[in-house]
Amino acid sequence: MENNRLKHKLYIIIFGHHTRAGRIFDIALIIAILISLTVLVLHSIEGLATEWDQTFVMLEYFFTAIFTVEYLLRLYCSPKPKAYATSFYGVVDLLSILPTYLALLFPSATFMGVIRLLRVMRIFRILKLVRYLQDSNILLRSLLMSRRKILVFFSTVAILVTIFGALIFVIEGPENGFTSIPQSIYWAIVTITTVGYGDLVPSTPLGKGLASLTMLLGYSILAVPTGIITAELNQEMKTHRNLVKCPNCSKSGHESDALHCKHCGSELATPEKRVVEVDSEDLK
Amino acid sequence: MENNRLKHKLYIIIFGHHTRAGRIFDIALIIAILISLTVLVLHSIEGLATEWDQTFVMLEYFFTAIFTVEYLLRLYCSPKPKAYATSFYGVVDLLSILPTYLALLFPSATFMGVIRLLRVMRIFRILKLVRYLQDSNILLRSLLMSRRKILVFFSTVAILVTIFGALIFVIEGPENGFTSIPQSIYWAIVTITTVGYGDLVPSTPLGKGLASLTMLLGYSILAVPTGIITAELNQEMKTHRNLVKCPNCSKSGHESDALHCKHCGSELATPEKRVVEVDSEDLK
Amino acid sequence: MENNRLKHKLYIIIFGHHTRAGRIFDIALIIAILISLTVLVLHSIEGLATEWDQTFVMLEYFFTAIFTVEYLLRLYCSPKPKAYATSFYGVVDLLSILPTYLALLFPSATFMGVIRLLRVMRIFRILKLVRYLQDSNILLRSLLMSRRKILVFFSTVAILVTIFGALIFVIEGPENGFTSIPQSIYWAIVTITTVGYGDLVPSTPLGKGLASLTMLLGYSILAVPTGIITAELNQEMKTHRNLVKCPNCSKSGHESDALHCKHCGSELATPEKRVVEVDSEDLK
Amino acid sequence: MENNRLKHKLYIIIFGHHTRAGRIFDIALIIAILISLTVLVLHSIEGLATEWDQTFVMLEYFFTAIFTVEYLLRLYCSPKPKAYATSFYGVVDLLSILPTYLALLFPSATFMGVIRLLRVMRIFRILKLVRYLQDSNILLRSLLMSRRKILVFFSTVAILVTIFGALIFVIEGPENGFTSIPQSIYWAIVTITTVGYGDLVPSTPLGKGLASLTMLLGYSILAVPTGIITAELNQEMKTHRNLVKCPNCSKSGHESDALHCKHCGSELATPEKRVVEVDSEDLK
Repeated sequence: MENNRLKHKLYIIIFGHHTRAGRIFDIALIIAILISLTVLVLHSIEGLATEWDQTFVMLEYFFTAIFTVEYLLRLYCSPKPKAYATSFYGVVDLLSILPTYLALLFPSATFMGVIRLLRVMRIFRILKLVRYLQDSNILLRSLLMSRRKILVFFSTVAILVTIFGALIFVIEGPENGFTSIPQSIYWAIVTITTVGYGDLVPSTPLGKGLASLTMLLGYSILAVPTGIITAELNQEMKTHRNLVKCPNCSKSGHESDALHCKHCGSELATPEKRVVEVDSEDLK
Repeated sequence: MENNRLKHKLYIIIFGHHTRAGRIFDIALIIAILISLTVLVLHSIEGLATEWDQTFVMLEYFFTAIFTVEYLLRLYCSPKPKAYATSFYGVVDLLSILPTYLALLFPSATFMGVIRLLRVMRIFRILKLVRYLQDSNILLRSLLMSRRKILVFFSTVAILVTIFGALIFVIEGPENGFTSIPQSIYWAIVTITTVGYGDLVPSTPLGKGLASLTMLLGYSILAVPTGIITAELNQEMKTHRNLVKCPNCSKSGHESDALHCKHCGSELATPEKRVVEVDSEDLK
Repeated sequence: MENNRLKHKLYIIIFGHHTRAGRIFDIALIIAILISLTVLVLHSIEGLATEWDQTFVMLEYFFTAIFTVEYLLRLYCSPKPKAYATSFYGVVDLLSILPTYLALLFPSATFMGVIRLLRVMRIFRILKLVRYLQDSNILLRSLLMSRRKILVFFSTVAILVTIFGALIFVIEGPENGFTSIPQSIYWAIVTITTVGYGDLVPSTPLGKGLASLTMLLGYSILAVPTGIITAELNQEMKTHRNLVKCPNCSKSGHESDALHCKHCGSELATPEKRVVEVDSEDLK
Repeated sequence: MENNRLKHKLYIIIFGHHTRAGRIFDIALIIAILISLTVLVLHSIEGLATEWDQTFVMLEYFFTAIFTVEYLLRLYCSPKPKAYATSFYGVVDLLSILPTYLALLFPSATFMGVIRLLRVMRIFRILKLVRYLQDSNILLRSLLMSRRKILVFFSTVAILVTIFGALIFVIEGPENGFTSIPQSIYWAIVTITTVGYGDLVPSTPLGKGLASLTMLLGYSILAVPTGIITAELNQEMKTHRNLVKCPNCSKSGHESDALHCKHCGSELATPEKRVVEVDSEDLK
């Protein structure tokens, strides 16, 4: 009984966002994530790594300990521990602490490459910050609404780069650096997205002609996803506008920066609050 | 008579999409195309090609046999074989099997370059997948509706790159790598599309000034096709929305993710089904 | 009197587009321009130039003769010869024939560079083709309507690249290739337009940070001209739609691909004709 | 008393834009800023700097004197000198004159790097020109209205480049040029913004795969800010249109290039004047 009350209290602090303690916990966690990321990034710089190696290793142990405690507390106080452990954030939380323990278990130098890979995965913890971003639900809804159109677009791009890659492979051939079709598809992607590294360029006149075609195509089909998202976003913003209702006359259609109802003049919720409310409704 | 019924049955399986057998045939064909493409792509990687050469050649014969049977069956059961043979997909189907037979007929090493070119053409079979992409008709219609505007845009780009190419050829000259006007037009395309390989860059101050102008122009006219397609897509989406009618009250204007009629509440066709219907109507 | 009638007849053929003779003259001129351009482009390719030099020079004399006759006829039959000679197309026409005569007058090798520059100016004749492009008036009007906004945008870009160029010059300095502020402004333009040649890249950590900022800024302000033109084009298309009136019930608001009036069903002018009419009205 | 009237007169000339003297002062100041900038830019070109060094130094003293007088006058006549001195333009004005005095105080060669940095800061004076750009308030308001959405977008980009940078660092490693995570994040920014310098490119197949993913992602999320700004600009332009009222019938809704009221035909303020008025209202 006593145990259950403690569990629930912890649950409200760790998983909730509405109490003062809950908000303090959230902010402390964000700061811990950002500092541990900074340590990871600095550790990758050779000059710093050799000089401060001991400090960095110590800090890594420290943050691993903190995140381990956080992970265990979440497992303990969650009403459905299994659901948390298998959820997206649960897996990210586990992956961010595992590598340090693995490095302790297998300290041999041969595993260093794998360990380095795993340790960097802690960076995915940064994704936990996404849910604190306000106003993201309009953007997200627009992307979700247009997901099928975007899928069609990417399938078309995939087909195009395969065809252009195969053609440039035949035209330029291995003697000009296009050693295989996958390599040539990589070139086609670099060209169609207008990135243009320049590590692989056509050198025959025919190849340059095909490259020009690829560029112009990429240049113009760039317009398609923009068109899709703009059209969808236009719709979303109109709908969103109608979601905000005046508390007095309950009429809607207010502009997104309106502070007073345009029908009766009574004060509206501030834009910040409005957005947060919609946000939390959507995330539940 | 008996023959005709078999023909019609085959026709429904091979060309149709509405029976179970027709769908199974479609899926089997897609899988065959994707595997044969993978073989082609892997065959182009030198390391793999020398080690597994025999296997790749065998697989190529195998898929050529399958696609040959498919091609002959299509010719046999089609009510208008000539129309099929001269249609876009008919030509693609023929081109995807021809190269292997040609390689058998002319096995001399001197034709290898040409054979390689032809064999890669099988990759165009991937285009057959396009018609299985849902939601593509809205995008396609938007592109078709704005085709004249896009043509004007590309003519303008063609004129601009010709002028800029000729100017940079005169300013920089062969001593800085701009060896001819076609070569300089290639540079202008690389620059105006913001690809920027860097294999050909201006080195005189005047050339750099002209390059800056080309870039800024490319940067801003990039906005034109986006504007065209967005405006057209906006129109299309409004029209499309009006195409979905409620089966109960037959009123239209539903949002694209609506599951129930907003006028009477009765269930609507799911978005997936809706789109498929419009698709097949359009493709007929 | 007789003279005047000949003059007027010539005027209708050379300047007009509505008679059969006028259209034949237009098409013949377009063909002559395109062939003379092809000759110019081919002449710039070294291999071809040495082998066929005599032929190219002969063709150049031939086209110069044709364009000279055209220019003199235009001067002769135009009701206001001075207005034509000082108009944009008049100057372009003169500049496209002048260089060949100058090359004859000053055949010394020292002037070759200047002559080459002048000869290439014939390429501007290609601009005469622009007025034959249909559907260009909607695009043009959108650009004209948003010209002040685009000017503001370009002024902002000019200010930004000046500031970023000066900063990178101080941070990286001549020892890393940023030899002067103009050179550094060129780098800023290459970066902010996302062209990214790679001939000039930052090498200090601080320089890379500034470069990252420049890129992200360029990436996001790219959206501004797109937004401007899309918004303007949306407006234009709505207005344009209202310009097409049904000849029977004279109601407007037809979609741009409509063939029949949606109010009374009578046939509308085909889209091609509709556009041409608006075009010629606008160009007068 | 006498003093106060002089102060007020100076205030109207220096800070105001509505009197003739005020406008002449503004124009003279713009010219002085542009010339002093040109001097600064030319001074950075090595060839010119050694030859004309004395002239450039003299001109720098001259413009520093002018801008010092301007700064002191602004401090003197402003009703709230402290507010001006701590305002954005006040700081910019001070920073643009300070470096020359510092160079006189510390003429030793060791401080040359710092002095060069400070002297270039005069370039920020160019920002003073922004407020003379007309039509900028619609663009500015659109950006302000969408600032929260753009912030969300940039946070997402920041998270993405951190993750992609960390992954490529692990995949490619220091042996392929990806020496640290900050360096790899720089690569991710160069790639996701489609700049593509090519100074740092993946060389392993897995790295190329990740790079392809980064490019395609950058290619498509480029659409998001465009969508945001276009949608916001559409809204703004509709609102702006309603701001212009006919002086006779006081109805609104005129197109932005309308010269006469479409309801009663009486003349409207010219577009240029209209914009200026809204401008100054907004800036106050």
